Amino acid sequence: MLYFDCDYMEGCYPEILKKLEEINMEKNTGYGTDDYCKSACDKILKKCGIDEGEVYFMTGGTQTNSTVISALLKNYEGVIAADSGHINTHEAGAIENSGHKVITIKNNEGKIMPCDLRKYLENFHRDENNEHMVYPGMVYISFPTEYGTLYSANELNEIYNICVEYGIFLYVDGARLGYGIMAKENDVTLEYLAHNCHIFYIGGTKVGAMLGEAVVIPNKGLIPRFFTAIKQKGALLAKGWILGVQFDTLFTDDLYFKIAENAVLRANEIKRIFEEKGYRFYINSPTNQIFVIMDDEKIKELKNNVSFSFWEKYDEKSTVVRFASSWATSKEDVERLEKFL
Amino acid sequence: MLYFDCDYMEGCYPEILKKLEEINMEKNTGYGTDDYCKSACDKILKKCGIDEGEVYFMTGGTQTNSTVISALLKNYEGVIAADSGHINTHEAGAIENSGHKVITIKNNEGKIMPCDLRKYLENFHRDENNEHMVYPGMVYISFPTEYGTLYSANELNEIYNICVEYGIFLYVDGARLGYGIMAKENDVTLEYLAHNCHIFYIGGTKVGAMLGEAVVIPNKGLIPRFFTAIKQKGALLAKGWILGVQFDTLFTDDLYFKIAENAVLRANEIKRIFEEKGYRFYINSPTNQIFVIMDDEKIKELKNNVSFSFWEKYDEKSTVVRFASSWATSKEDVERLEKFL
Amino acid sequence: MLYFDCDYMEGCYPEILKKLEEINMEKNTGYGTDDYCKSACDKILKKCGIDEGEVYFMTGGTQTNSTVISALLKNYEGVIAADSGHINTHEAGAIENSGHKVITIKNNEGKIMPCDLRKYLENFHRDENNEHMVYPGMVYISFPTEYGTLYSANELNEIYNICVEYGIFLYVDGARLGYGIMAKENDVTLEYLAHNCHIFYIGGTKVGAMLGEAVVIPNKGLIPRFFTAIKQKGALLAKGWILGVQFDTLFTDDLYFKIAENAVLRANEIKRIFEEKGYRFYINSPTNQIFVIMDDEKIKELKNNVSFSFWEKYDEKSTVVRFASSWATSKEDVERLEKFL
Amino acid sequence: MLYFDCDYMEGCYPEILKKLEEINMEKNTGYGTDDYCKSACDKILKKCGIDEGEVYFMTGGTQTNSTVISALLKNYEGVIAADSGHINTHEAGAIENSGHKVITIKNNEGKIMPCDLRKYLENFHRDENNEHMVYPGMVYISFPTEYGTLYSANELNEIYNICVEYGIFLYVDGARLGYGIMAKENDVTLEYLAHNCHIFYIGGTKVGAMLGEAVVIPNKGLIPRFFTAIKQKGALLAKGWILGVQFDTLFTDDLYFKIAENAVLRANEIKRIFEEKGYRFYINSPTNQIFVIMDDEKIKELKNNVSFSFWEKYDEKSTVVRFASSWATSKEDVERLEKFL
Repeated sequence: MLYFDCDYMEGCYPEILKKLEEINMEKNTGYGTDDYCKSACDKILKKCGIDEGEVYFMTGGTQTNSTVISALLKNYEGVIAADSGHINTHEAGAIENSGHKVITIKNNEGKIMPCDLRKYLENFHRDENNEHMVYPGMVYISFPTEYGTLYSANELNEIYNICVEYGIFLYVDGARLGYGIMAKENDVTLEYLAHNCHIFYIGGTKVGAMLGEAVVIPNKGLIPRFFTAIKQKGALLAKGWILGVQFDTLFTDDLYFKIAENAVLRANEIKRIFEEKGYRFYINSPTNQIFVIMDDEKIKELKNNVSFSFWEKYDEKSTVVRFASSWATSKEDVERLEKFL
Repeated sequence: MLYFDCDYMEGCYPEILKKLEEINMEKNTGYGTDDYCKSACDKILKKCGIDEGEVYFMTGGTQTNSTVISALLKNYEGVIAADSGHINTHEAGAIENSGHKVITIKNNEGKIMPCDLRKYLENFHRDENNEHMVYPGMVYISFPTEYGTLYSANELNEIYNICVEYGIFLYVDGARLGYGIMAKENDVTLEYLAHNCHIFYIGGTKVGAMLGEAVVIPNKGLIPRFFTAIKQKGALLAKGWILGVQFDTLFTDDLYFKIAENAVLRANEIKRIFEEKGYRFYINSPTNQIFVIMDDEKIKELKNNVSFSFWEKYDEKSTVVRFASSWATSKEDVERLEKFL
Repeated sequence: MLYFDCDYMEGCYPEILKKLEEINMEKNTGYGTDDYCKSACDKILKKCGIDEGEVYFMTGGTQTNSTVISALLKNYEGVIAADSGHINTHEAGAIENSGHKVITIKNNEGKIMPCDLRKYLENFHRDENNEHMVYPGMVYISFPTEYGTLYSANELNEIYNICVEYGIFLYVDGARLGYGIMAKENDVTLEYLAHNCHIFYIGGTKVGAMLGEAVVIPNKGLIPRFFTAIKQKGALLAKGWILGVQFDTLFTDDLYFKIAENAVLRANEIKRIFEEKGYRFYINSPTNQIFVIMDDEKIKELKNNVSFSFWEKYDEKSTVVRFASSWATSKEDVERLEKFL
Repeated sequence: MLYFDCDYMEGCYPEILKKLEEINMEKNTGYGTDDYCKSACDKILKKCGIDEGEVYFMTGGTQTNSTVISALLKNYEGVIAADSGHINTHEAGAIENSGHKVITIKNNEGKIMPCDLRKYLENFHRDENNEHMVYPGMVYISFPTEYGTLYSANELNEIYNICVEYGIFLYVDGARLGYGIMAKENDVTLEYLAHNCHIFYIGGTKVGAMLGEAVVIPNKGLIPRFFTAIKQKGALLAKGWILGVQFDTLFTDDLYFKIAENAVLRANEIKRIFEEKGYRFYINSPTNQIFVIMDDEKIKELKNNVSFSFWEKYDEKSTVVRFASSWATSKEDVERLEKFL
């Protein structure tokens, strides 16, 4: 059986496991106060071109989103997201559970268009009754989006400027950040990102780590007592170095980017195969997720040999399905897939 | 100056004030345990044709919605509402603040269409990933809606049956219930309503009371320790009889319905005048709110003598404005308005 | 039957009702934007000796406490209170429901001693593990306390200074503020209070109003978008002037203080009677609440003619009971009570 | 340097790491739906002597406590804990952040005494005003406690019976469960525990796992849609098998208990050494934590070679300090420690 269901089906990049083994019996202090976390933090900030920032490690995306968003918003504030945004669809209401409304803007291929954002904010601030409404205090975008699409550097900068203009935060969910940065079409670097938002996270779980996400705060002190907020949310790992050592490894010699590139290369090969075989794409995704419109009969047949994700019905006889590559996808996987298509 | 801004610009129906004066120096026990609350409760339940129900009094609509909804939903559940529903637009995120997502369905003239509701629920339950999503545990509708429109008895019954089928609650926000029930086109009685939802409230603030809403639970025991939940939400009035005596008065000799009828009659007269003068309506509202499309120049002129509400821009030269009548609107008010139109 | 159960058994001081009647059919704008609220606000601030403050009206004590405290605290902060404090005992967990811990300090006759507060804060800030603990972000005291006792001006000032030193808020619950200020032993004026805390409320419900509490913020802008926060908590009354006009009346010609004085005078007479008859007091309360240790047999007998509150068992044969006077207690009430004791 | 600071300073028992390596490149389905989680679940339930239970894996103690407690409590309910309980002291207000009060009972060497629990519940239910109070809906105990002490089987059963009698839940925090079960004095087996509470967790983080806690629900279906609740709390690990495989290893051939026994044996040796050297104990703890009263001068000297935890000042010249052993503590560590004492 071939698996293209998602990008978190394997453990971790082998070098990480080796490192975990190496230090297994070392004694480390708890809660992220150890040297591996410090080292990982330094390397990440350096790569971001930031002198005085902060890095915190958590164990998953929903946890990170919920912890960051609730730490930054005031009670009366909500967070603006694309209606297709992960926090609005597949986080089981984690944001609302922390007391905040997710204010949705219709997505454009998974993205919030700067013009739509500006229009929403203008309307809100013009509305005489806005004191009876949830105040938009933050913008949440995912990079890449849930549809695998990317904001251009210009779009990102435009959104950031709008946020700055309105005095609200821009938070970027980078669950698949590596796959976005290494996409061919992409012109956003890690450093550019770090200078065009208030806070973001670098996804580890989906990009080579066993588990872990690294929250980057480019301006130190943005969130007072964030350590306590993390603890309160149950997001503080006792053995913090388990996360630290993984990111330390990933950010040594650009490993994170190298293994992310593999996913993009494999995805591009798969896309080319689909194209050659005459399949239509549902959306043009330049990263590691491929959304194909497939006949229901073909799906049934293919399922005997290949595992992939149902996305949504397209029409009576066909369906949108998703194929995801990852750091672990091999050329052989792609070649084998080709035969079944 | 003439005022048609909204339906809560005066104190209360004079008889209520007289009653409050009469009993002012009586000694009453606190928190709704007094005889006036009991009497009001009995009269309301009788009018609802219910033998064994419960009635609780609160001081305002947002408070009531937030208290009821959070008392009924489990943590992982959200409430379905029309996107135009009050809880989704003008309650400052009260529902989310209590931890629950407002799941929106596109409104049809302010209403949720039964077919849209069914489709949403079918899709949710069919979705393989729904364990990662907010579970729809309740449907919220307003009767009349925020656009002054009404559900027919059939529509209400259909929605209720869908809720029963899916094992979820139907809650009806009756902030302007009287104005809905007394509308000409309406075929929903209080008794019918009480038998076609799990919980609803009878609005007092907008229909003759100084303040107060009466939550009706047709099946006793629906919410365990609801008294404590009300207290926790800061919604328990120390001098509960201040609310009880108002509803006791309103539900004596059908006063509530008589004064509500006044608002509807006046609204109908106003609508007739608008029609005769050639104005267009934005929406056909059979209750006490009238949405008119008016030239911006006319608005400017009219504002010298009449106060009314901006709703939204219609096109470059005209605007949707709202005129609201109430129990306190007199025939003279209508006649005076006519002269200015 | 004679009633000394509590201080909220009657409607309101008759002049208030007269005023409500007078303006009943006037048209007012909603949500506290009317002239009566403005006037009441001005009078209150003037009496407080404050130039640029804010006043907000809410409908009850628990609501006020929960709204104020959750508006001021950050997520990771808790509020320090005496273990006997209302927010810790009889508000059904309203503070915790808004996400914050009530950190308790053992009460001394209902009060937090300045030295105990300082000790707690010193210990907290010295604790190496305090990042794993709830950060104390506010001190809550009630004036008078739940036992009817009072902080001296010196004590209040000392507590305030400690709060300022630690950069945290002091909030004073004045549900019975009038009865405290008019107590003989008291040396705290309204003006003094307003300059020795960050925020407090003037209780109306228990001191002459039908319902209503006035939150005073001596320094304008302390809570951004407080209006929205109030709305979100369901604490924003549509007909705000119903509260405004009551406080406007109470703060005209010092009515609030005059009627509060009545309660204190009557309480002092009752205390004298108890003393003369040889009863022991459980606590020396200088305000409108009297805590007496009474033989269980006497209680049984007295209950035939007088209604009062059980407080707690004292020993096998006797019980602590509470007698409360109010603005509405007459000399005749006291004389009649004397006969039964 | 020798480390006795806490029981989570090393990675994990080496066999676990080997297993993680073995399966690293296997493809597994996400969110705990994999075979390793199923196998671990089966083994745990079997060891518990339970036919039809449920097991869920989370990543840390605070997360587990907060997720379980908020999933079981109704809005108006709080959880009873010893004042020394972890949820009351060192979880940064996680329980309150989820909306619930921690109701404290004075601890007896870290434990809640059954008689104190019964007294609290009796008083609550007898209190006429209890509808204004937080309803006690659950009892939380830790086994072992934060002081390393243990409930006897009789005590546990007595507490459980009280909970059953009052219709409330008993939840047992087993962060160090293995160290408790393997203590010499202990007479509580895993099976006994599973039949004397409603829900508990088996701590992995402190007992050999790299990270992970296993929540055991002896009666299937206790918490509806718990999966969604876990997701909402950010406690659902994408790569669930990372936790599953650890517990699968720990519950193969009783590894969990064998390595826990090591900690207890080492702790007993250390206690004997302290005794022989004339040190006094602050508390008699039979598990892996040892609380010693030590002269401040000795502490200063010892710190040059040994790392351990400050607990609290004992008197002017001495301090309570904690030494913790773990699965990773060797006989050599103990011998080396002896030399420095």
